[in-house]
Amino acid sequence: MIETGSYLTVAELGEFGLIDRIRRRLGAATSSDALILGPGDDSAVVGLRAERVVASVDLLVEARHFHRDWSSGSDIGAKAAASSLADVAAMGARPLALLVGLAVPGDLPVAWVDELTNGIRAEVTRAGAAVAGGDVVSDDRVTLSMTALGDPDGIEPVTRSGARTGDLVVLAGRLGWAAAGLAALRTGRAEEAACLAMVAAHRRPEVGYEAARRLAEIGATAMLDVSDGLLADLGHVADASAVTIDLHAAAIPVDDELRAAAQVLGVDPLRLVLTGGDDHGFAATIPRADGRELARMGATVIGRVVAGPSRISVDGEELDVAVGWRHF
Amino acid sequence: MIETGSYLTVAELGEFGLIDRIRRRLGAATSSDALILGPGDDSAVVGLRAERVVASVDLLVEARHFHRDWSSGSDIGAKAAASSLADVAAMGARPLALLVGLAVPGDLPVAWVDELTNGIRAEVTRAGAAVAGGDVVSDDRVTLSMTALGDPDGIEPVTRSGARTGDLVVLAGRLGWAAAGLAALRTGRAEEAACLAMVAAHRRPEVGYEAARRLAEIGATAMLDVSDGLLADLGHVADASAVTIDLHAAAIPVDDELRAAAQVLGVDPLRLVLTGGDDHGFAATIPRADGRELARMGATVIGRVVAGPSRISVDGEELDVAVGWRHF
Repeated sequence: MIETGSYLTVAELGEFGLIDRIRRRLGAATSSDALILGPGDDSAVVGLRAERVVASVDLLVEARHFHRDWSSGSDIGAKAAASSLADVAAMGARPLALLVGLAVPGDLPVAWVDELTNGIRAEVTRAGAAVAGGDVVSDDRVTLSMTALGDPDGIEPVTRSGARTGDLVVLAGRLGWAAAGLAALRTGRAEEAACLAMVAAHRRPEVGYEAARRLAEIGATAMLDVSDGLLADLGHVADASAVTIDLHAAAIPVDDELRAAAQVLGVDPLRLVLTGGDDHGFAATIPRADGRELARMGATVIGRVVAGPSRISVDGEELDVAVGWRHF
Repeated sequence: MIETGSYLTVAELGEFGLIDRIRRRLGAATSSDALILGPGDDSAVVGLRAERVVASVDLLVEARHFHRDWSSGSDIGAKAAASSLADVAAMGARPLALLVGLAVPGDLPVAWVDELTNGIRAEVTRAGAAVAGGDVVSDDRVTLSMTALGDPDGIEPVTRSGARTGDLVVLAGRLGWAAAGLAALRTGRAEEAACLAMVAAHRRPEVGYEAARRLAEIGATAMLDVSDGLLADLGHVADASAVTIDLHAAAIPVDDELRAAAQVLGVDPLRLVLTGGDDHGFAATIPRADGRELARMGATVIGRVVAGPSRISVDGEELDVAVGWRHF
C-alpha cells in the first residue's frame, strides 16, 4: 500500500520534521475562511457564525478500529476523520475543523504517514472543513484521536432527545455494507467479486454530510449518525426521547449488492443492515418530509415514532435492541 | 494507589456502564453556564461570548507520557487535562470545555478509572471549565486524548508570532521542578526529602491559568506554555516572531528547593530550569508591565526581545536552542 520507494522512517525524520511534512502535504486543507489561526501555535482559533460551537472526539486504536494489513493509510485517515466529522454533522452543524492527534512508531515508514495524511486531507475537504491543529507523539503502535468542530450556522443543534410521537423515521445513506466488508476481510473473502464494494465501504465510508445538514434544515427533531448499528443507535434516540420507534420491515433498504455479498458470506442481509456499524448513515426523526426532497438526498422513510416505552419495535412487535456493536 | 476494595474490571462493567460511571463521578464538572449540551449526544455544544473558539488537542500514551507505577490515576488525569487546558490558556483564552478520549484495557480495575476521573474533574474545575464529552474505547494500554476548548472572551488570541523588539520577556510559574521529579523517579530517589516536592510537581503540575489570562489582559504580544523546556519553547517564539530573545542569566529564577533537589540528583539546577518540560509555566513577551502586577501573578522579567536573527541569547551571547525535550 506504500506508494513510494522511500524507506525513511518517522524516527529518522524526527518529530518536527514529521509535523512539517504533514502540514506541507495537507496544504490548502489547513486553511479556510473559518480558520483564523491554523496549525503551529499552542491552539487553533476557529471563527463561527454565532456564539456557539459543536464538538466531538473519537479515539481510534490499531487492531481495534483499523488494521494496517487490511486498509491503506489513506483509507484509515479518511475513515478516522469521517467518524468524527459525521458526529458533528449529526447535530445538523457544518463541519469546520479537525484536530488530529497522531501516535506513531519510530520505525513506521514516513510514506505510510504520507498516505494517512492524504486520506485525512481528502475527507476533511469532502466535509468542507480544514485541519486546524494536532499533536504528534511516538508510541509502538498507531493511535488516532480525531476532534471535529462544527458550526451550527443558524440551525438549533439536533440532539437525540427531540423525537416526538407521530414523527417519521428517516434514513439517509446505506447501511450494512461496512459490516459485510469487515466479515469478508475476517473470513478471507475480500477478493470475491460480490464483496469488493463492501470491503471498500468498510475501508472508507461515504458520509452524506450534506444530507445530514439538509435533514436538519427541513426540521429533523432528532438525529444521529449510525456508527454502532441502526437498532442500537435508534435505541439511544428512543431512550433519550422517551418514545417507541416503530420500524416498517418492508421499508428497511436492503439493496441487491448487499444481498449478493450476504449470500457469499452466508449471513442475513437484513441483520447486517439492522446491526452493522461504521457506515455512518444518518437516522433522523422529522414531523413531515416531502418525498422528492428525501429522494434527492438519498433518504427513505423507514418507520414512525409512536407513543410507548423507550424501545424499538418492528411492525409493532417488540424487539431486543441490545444487539448493536459493543466495544467491550 | 487504588483506594477501594473493589476489583471490578472495566470489561465486567462494560462500555456503557463505564461511561455512566465516569459521568456520574464527574457530576457537576459536566455542566457550566457555557455548556449548552454536555456529554451523551453525538457532539457537545459549547456557548461562547463571541463568534470564535480556541481549540487544542494533546495525545498522551502510557510509558511515554505517564507511568501507572509512578503516578496515581488521579495525578495522570489531572496532568493530562492540564496539558491541554494550558494550551488554551496560553492563547489568553478562558478554558471552557474538555473532550476526553480514553482507551483502557478490559482488565483495568474500575477503581483506577475512578481515580483518573477524580483527577480530570479536579483539574477541569481548577481551570474553570467542564467536561463536554468524550469517547471510551478498549485497548491493551491506557491512552488519553485531551481536547480543550477556550473562549477568547474579549482578548485577541495571543500567538507565538507577536513578539516585538523592546518587549520584556516574562515568566509566570516555576520551571525545572517536573524535570527534577522525573529524574528522581528514574534514579530511585523519589523518596528523598529534597525530591518529594519535585516528584509531586512531575505528577501534577500547578498551572497558573489566571496568570496566563492576566498576562494577555495586560498586553502580552506573544505567549506559550512551557511544555518542552524554556529554551526550546522561547525558540519557537523567536522563530515565529523573527526576533532574538535575550535572557538575563541572573534573572532566571532558580529557587532554593530546586537547588537542593538538583544537588541530590547531581544535576545543574539552571539546566533543569532552562530545558525541563512539563511544568506548564507561561512565558510571554509584553511591551511593559508593572512590577507589583507581575509579583501578584507570580511572574518575573527574565529577559528582553532584541533585534537580530531568530534565536535565543543569554546576556547577549548566542546559545544553541536545540536542547529542549524531543519526542523522538
